Amino acid sequence: MEPSERAASLLVKLRAFMSDHVYPAEPILEAHAASDRRWEVHPKVEELKALAKAAGLWNLWLPRDSGRLLKIAPGRPGTDESEADAWMRGPGLTNLEYAHLAGCMGASVWASEFFNCSAPDTGNMEVLLRYGTKAQQERWLRPLLLGTIRSCFAMTEPAVASSDATNVTSSIVRRGDSYVVNGRKWWTSGACDPRCELAIFMGKTTPDGTPGVPKHRQQTMVLVPMRTKGVTVVRPLPVFGYDDAPHGHAETTFEDVVVSVKDAELLGEGRGFEIAQGRLGPGRLHHCMRLIGMGERALTLAARRAEARVAFGQPLSRNASVLQTLGRARVTLDGARLATLDAARRLDAEGNKAAKGAIAACKVAAPAAAIAVIDAAIQIHGALGVCDDTPLARMFAGARTLRLADGPDEVHLETIAKLEVRRSRM
Amino acid sequence: MEPSERAASLLVKLRAFMSDHVYPAEPILEAHAASDRRWEVHPKVEELKALAKAAGLWNLWLPRDSGRLLKIAPGRPGTDESEADAWMRGPGLTNLEYAHLAGCMGASVWASEFFNCSAPDTGNMEVLLRYGTKAQQERWLRPLLLGTIRSCFAMTEPAVASSDATNVTSSIVRRGDSYVVNGRKWWTSGACDPRCELAIFMGKTTPDGTPGVPKHRQQTMVLVPMRTKGVTVVRPLPVFGYDDAPHGHAETTFEDVVVSVKDAELLGEGRGFEIAQGRLGPGRLHHCMRLIGMGERALTLAARRAEARVAFGQPLSRNASVLQTLGRARVTLDGARLATLDAARRLDAEGNKAAKGAIAACKVAAPAAAIAVIDAAIQIHGALGVCDDTPLARMFAGARTLRLADGPDEVHLETIAKLEVRRSRM
Amino acid sequence: MEPSERAASLLVKLRAFMSDHVYPAEPILEAHAASDRRWEVHPKVEELKALAKAAGLWNLWLPRDSGRLLKIAPGRPGTDESEADAWMRGPGLTNLEYAHLAGCMGASVWASEFFNCSAPDTGNMEVLLRYGTKAQQERWLRPLLLGTIRSCFAMTEPAVASSDATNVTSSIVRRGDSYVVNGRKWWTSGACDPRCELAIFMGKTTPDGTPGVPKHRQQTMVLVPMRTKGVTVVRPLPVFGYDDAPHGHAETTFEDVVVSVKDAELLGEGRGFEIAQGRLGPGRLHHCMRLIGMGERALTLAARRAEARVAFGQPLSRNASVLQTLGRARVTLDGARLATLDAARRLDAEGNKAAKGAIAACKVAAPAAAIAVIDAAIQIHGALGVCDDTPLARMFAGARTLRLADGPDEVHLETIAKLEVRRSRM
Amino acid sequence: MEPSERAASLLVKLRAFMSDHVYPAEPILEAHAASDRRWEVHPKVEELKALAKAAGLWNLWLPRDSGRLLKIAPGRPGTDESEADAWMRGPGLTNLEYAHLAGCMGASVWASEFFNCSAPDTGNMEVLLRYGTKAQQERWLRPLLLGTIRSCFAMTEPAVASSDATNVTSSIVRRGDSYVVNGRKWWTSGACDPRCELAIFMGKTTPDGTPGVPKHRQQTMVLVPMRTKGVTVVRPLPVFGYDDAPHGHAETTFEDVVVSVKDAELLGEGRGFEIAQGRLGPGRLHHCMRLIGMGERALTLAARRAEARVAFGQPLSRNASVLQTLGRARVTLDGARLATLDAARRLDAEGNKAAKGAIAACKVAAPAAAIAVIDAAIQIHGALGVCDDTPLARMFAGARTLRLADGPDEVHLETIAKLEVRRSRM
Repeated sequence: MEPSERAASLLVKLRAFMSDHVYPAEPILEAHAASDRRWEVHPKVEELKALAKAAGLWNLWLPRDSGRLLKIAPGRPGTDESEADAWMRGPGLTNLEYAHLAGCMGASVWASEFFNCSAPDTGNMEVLLRYGTKAQQERWLRPLLLGTIRSCFAMTEPAVASSDATNVTSSIVRRGDSYVVNGRKWWTSGACDPRCELAIFMGKTTPDGTPGVPKHRQQTMVLVPMRTKGVTVVRPLPVFGYDDAPHGHAETTFEDVVVSVKDAELLGEGRGFEIAQGRLGPGRLHHCMRLIGMGERALTLAARRAEARVAFGQPLSRNASVLQTLGRARVTLDGARLATLDAARRLDAEGNKAAKGAIAACKVAAPAAAIAVIDAAIQIHGALGVCDDTPLARMFAGARTLRLADGPDEVHLETIAKLEVRRSRM
Repeated sequence: MEPSERAASLLVKLRAFMSDHVYPAEPILEAHAASDRRWEVHPKVEELKALAKAAGLWNLWLPRDSGRLLKIAPGRPGTDESEADAWMRGPGLTNLEYAHLAGCMGASVWASEFFNCSAPDTGNMEVLLRYGTKAQQERWLRPLLLGTIRSCFAMTEPAVASSDATNVTSSIVRRGDSYVVNGRKWWTSGACDPRCELAIFMGKTTPDGTPGVPKHRQQTMVLVPMRTKGVTVVRPLPVFGYDDAPHGHAETTFEDVVVSVKDAELLGEGRGFEIAQGRLGPGRLHHCMRLIGMGERALTLAARRAEARVAFGQPLSRNASVLQTLGRARVTLDGARLATLDAARRLDAEGNKAAKGAIAACKVAAPAAAIAVIDAAIQIHGALGVCDDTPLARMFAGARTLRLADGPDEVHLETIAKLEVRRSRM
Repeated sequence: MEPSERAASLLVKLRAFMSDHVYPAEPILEAHAASDRRWEVHPKVEELKALAKAAGLWNLWLPRDSGRLLKIAPGRPGTDESEADAWMRGPGLTNLEYAHLAGCMGASVWASEFFNCSAPDTGNMEVLLRYGTKAQQERWLRPLLLGTIRSCFAMTEPAVASSDATNVTSSIVRRGDSYVVNGRKWWTSGACDPRCELAIFMGKTTPDGTPGVPKHRQQTMVLVPMRTKGVTVVRPLPVFGYDDAPHGHAETTFEDVVVSVKDAELLGEGRGFEIAQGRLGPGRLHHCMRLIGMGERALTLAARRAEARVAFGQPLSRNASVLQTLGRARVTLDGARLATLDAARRLDAEGNKAAKGAIAACKVAAPAAAIAVIDAAIQIHGALGVCDDTPLARMFAGARTLRLADGPDEVHLETIAKLEVRRSRM
Repeated sequence: MEPSERAASLLVKLRAFMSDHVYPAEPILEAHAASDRRWEVHPKVEELKALAKAAGLWNLWLPRDSGRLLKIAPGRPGTDESEADAWMRGPGLTNLEYAHLAGCMGASVWASEFFNCSAPDTGNMEVLLRYGTKAQQERWLRPLLLGTIRSCFAMTEPAVASSDATNVTSSIVRRGDSYVVNGRKWWTSGACDPRCELAIFMGKTTPDGTPGVPKHRQQTMVLVPMRTKGVTVVRPLPVFGYDDAPHGHAETTFEDVVVSVKDAELLGEGRGFEIAQGRLGPGRLHHCMRLIGMGERALTLAARRAEARVAFGQPLSRNASVLQTLGRARVTLDGARLATLDAARRLDAEGNKAAKGAIAACKVAAPAAAIAVIDAAIQIHGALGVCDDTPLARMFAGARTLRLADGPDEVHLETIAKLEVRRSRM
């Protein structure tokens, strides 16, 4: 599960980029996030995106088969278009290769965006790649792949448990060549970003109880331009006090929003649940990879602090209890790291279905490990650890949400357990 | 350890006050805390303070012996002064009696202030009560007891480990009848409040290495009016994204601040460490009591959510795993609750020194229990639990800091362990 | 929750007895338990029972109301009978008073028997006290109270989950004035003891599906003399390798065992479940009290070992990590100790039903705390801790079974959770 | 980290062997272990050893380079000697290949011996392979490799902390061409076995404080035939009540035991510590691999039990809380499994020193995971789980000792932490 040669070489570049550009930018972005202008995008972000493109560290997340799936006409050779074309295709890595890189990016909560590797855009791009028409790809996927716009994913609703995606209550009603979209969504991450142009929206095209339509064929996904009449970003929801501006986790309403069926419909009526399922496999893995990176960063900070900080006459790193904490953190983190790499390997080798248990396992292990390690690092930092002079508190908040986002622990554990019971019969 | 008759009767009143006034005010205060005017005090706060005074729920924290310690001249009977006099004396409860009441207050993070029972004012008032001259009490203790001003406690410094209070590096230099105060402090909680008028400041009057002066006799505490030249509130420090406005946890600097020795000095030169030690016993206990209250609130919210929320076709409260979580939360919380009450009982019956181990034990148990219960409640709430539509996330942040504030877990556990080793010799 | 004066004075005596007699006897009994003669009762046991009687430390568990319930004719004053009479009545303590004493006894796994306070005899005696006829009390309760015979409780069956007592499949069939008893039981603790004369047996007098008989009225309890034809002790079941000889946890069979209805029947046909429920409240509490005592013993041994053992150039007690472990152990143990005392207090003050949640809570907390503390003590002892040169390994095995015996954790947690949900509605 | 083709093919054979021969033999061996003849070797053991040899499943643990190290003359082709020769060489697997096989063997506590893969013989054979003279190999290594004798390792002493191997106090005094060996050892595993012929003994040839001799050059290892005058097996030490007969963990004394220097000395005077260090790397890994196997077995048993056992009207496998437990067990076990495989991979690829941190990490993770999973399985089994009708309780005892044996958790965590601090400087 060591990185391939190609991944190793990208990893060297990426680490240098992190040291040279990302870590130095952190205090700037942190200060911006605490300022009154935090809902605007800081120029540093676009600057670093340009640098990452130039360094060949762009769209690293794009799956191996994306070339085949891309319906966008290639640019003419020797023009800017052709450069853009290369950016749009990325290096085409395996999940295992990308795992190592995403782990590295995860060390900074700001980093993924610089490499066009951040949620929910990656998931949305993957949906457009797999299920978008040529026209949909040209209109939305192109600018997303080039990083000129951003997007959000409007699925979760306040009124129902979203661990079961069939639960959505929003409605998508066909009226002639149009759909009329209504619903209240929340945790629409990214909707607050001024660059956000597109929502992928899930709702029911078939009401409950319609005869002959099974529960998981009632839902449809549609593309809704954010600037359509009736789309309202109600408020950003904070996460443990962090509003994650300018990205933001929004409560959004869709009131009588009208879109053309041809432009909006993805894959076909009644296939929304199917898309949602497919979208989540690699997405969960990406989250896990980044969580490992968070844990690594926290552990490094903790070890450095232990060496630098003197209490009761000696550095903390000579205190046996602090050493136990550091050692335990490494053991915990490595277990989760290996579980994540192994899930990526299985996803590559055996596909989504066979890797289901392994992905569920790392989706439980990685947030738990990250939380444990970050929490230990906070404790070693003392009061410094809970404020924003280190990235620890913000990481903690992010890691904690991932015991809930993309399925709570409990749902994944149940998935694993049922596989285990089946295996035990053999 | 059940509440005495007096405590029970106050508890009935307090619970009614919480239901009638505090819980309904929470959304208002939460919204204010998210607004641009959050550094101003919301009028609701003063309104509720007046109601609490009228209800006889004022200064409940004041210790039994406070009447004896108060040097402020009593008001003339039959005047407003006499009413104020009663407010300034409070009911004079034992620690065990107060424990039950503070537990109840802890259920809302905003509540303690309404009853003039919030940190760091209570600790500061206790210092003034025990060590203040008549003049110091008239000038500072009177308005604090009446709730017309607030105060802060400037001890912790960014440069040194504050788990050992002898470490402070700030200097207090005698110049004639004055002290010149210099230092950089942080986590000066409450310093941002527009009503904050007073800092109790700890620094060294004797430099390190002065012959004949032991390490714990180098420190002195002085009263510094916040509006003195040279006092600067540099910035508020957020706690997991919460800035706790308008209270705020400030970084503060004191640059050549001049105060008169007579007005400023508390107890005497070189006795700052002694004051700090005494200040912490009941203060730690108050924190623990409130943490139990937080835990109780979280558990109630979790149980209600479990009944109300339907997932996979049944309320969560019929899911065996959710029940295990709720049951475990109660067991954890009750252990910490009883440990806190027992520490209060021992503090009353046997005094600070004999209760040292018990106080240290609940200082470890209560934050851990509160964190565990709140975290479980968040998980049961799903994404709702991490935003500010419930008090859970804010409570979590507060509870987490209390594994660090007033001594990190590790220091308390070491205290307990040394007592245990000593006991095992017998 | 401090011991009453009466309990405190008994506690002084009991502690002296433990130091003077019990701890010195431990190596003798441990060696006997490892010898070929371990299924015989070591003479030391009867010797210590006699000493305990003489010291007034006999039948301490007997509840306050036992005098009223005892139907045995009092002995003539001035004779041996009258002395026996006093022994049979015990001091009549409250549950809270006894809690302190049982905690002290728990420090040695051998101790309870010396004071006639060991399971399952105490539970059986309580059943006979509450539900036995005068004749049954004369025949069985008298020698049990005097410690001349022992008894066992045959309820658990290998074939069905015993967390639900209505599940028993053994049959008790009426034939004229007799009952014919058939069934396979296990975990019949004490059945291997050569002094064991009596089994209290639970079976169904009404088969499943009999119209008009509710599920919990099918069971009956009968007294079966061990030496009756058809009663077979099949084998002792080891607990983590310990067979607990000569007591033993037996698999037993009852094949066409005939007993007279009049002699055997307790309380009446169909009331076995009712008896079982009542039997468990105080019994669970006794187990918890003893578990706390085990934990205290383990913690003392750990602290002593930490002081005595040198590793890497210093005693373990100067290693910060060992101190964290000791401190954490005390915090854990105290939470469980207070929870147990509080449950005893509530049982005394409010009765079985109101104390249900509190008893369930300590039934979860006490084994968990004991296991955690004993396990930590084992780790501090190194390899010494897993063998029988200290009482730790045997205690561990005993404590671990109590996460299962008298209801597994899961059942108790569910009980607590349901009470919590109900409370949250208010 | 998937098994190589060679390992995969051996794994198929091994699994079949486990199902066909090992699991069916378990009740026989368990019954024997509970009988009076348990200190004799049951004939089934030798029978299964013969079958394993015949199946090519012999000496699987032997490292890749063992052919090169073996100084024993090869047998003449076409004779029995030549068959023995093949047995003595084993398949020569990498650590990673063997990891998969040892994991499979670990599922039964009895299994390793059948394949000549059990401790402490493997470690002793490795020492003889690396450091033994031709004569020593002929005399001791040949019969050990052929499984006709067994051996023990006499290092740990009751008087000193054995986490630091330089601590041994036993003495080895040169007298002419002989060494005179004196010392009290314990946890000399295997010394009770009637087939045990050899002890590898570690003692000091240079007393403390000898000028010019560093602390880790005072120790020497010598070969001591068990039947030498002065060697006494004092007693077997039980582990949580299990004496592991006929293997046994012995307390042994060596009183004026005389051995010839030429026959006995390994590697040279003063090089005992060096041998001890080298011996432990792969040995620790073997233990970890087997622990994973134990965990797998426990999880399978738990899942089966959950399906088979009905409580409160449904199989446990439909209870959400039981599913959480099973899911959590898999997550925990997989983290430790991958950590162990990764350590094996690194040991192969980078050698002992570079793999130090990884080996320490799995030495902490594997026992913890095994204990957690076995404990969960016991809880799911109820009372059945603590007795010997399943292998769970015995496995638990074995797994628990491995948080102590070959270095306690605390020592390994400190090793890891120090590496982490060093890494954080980069």
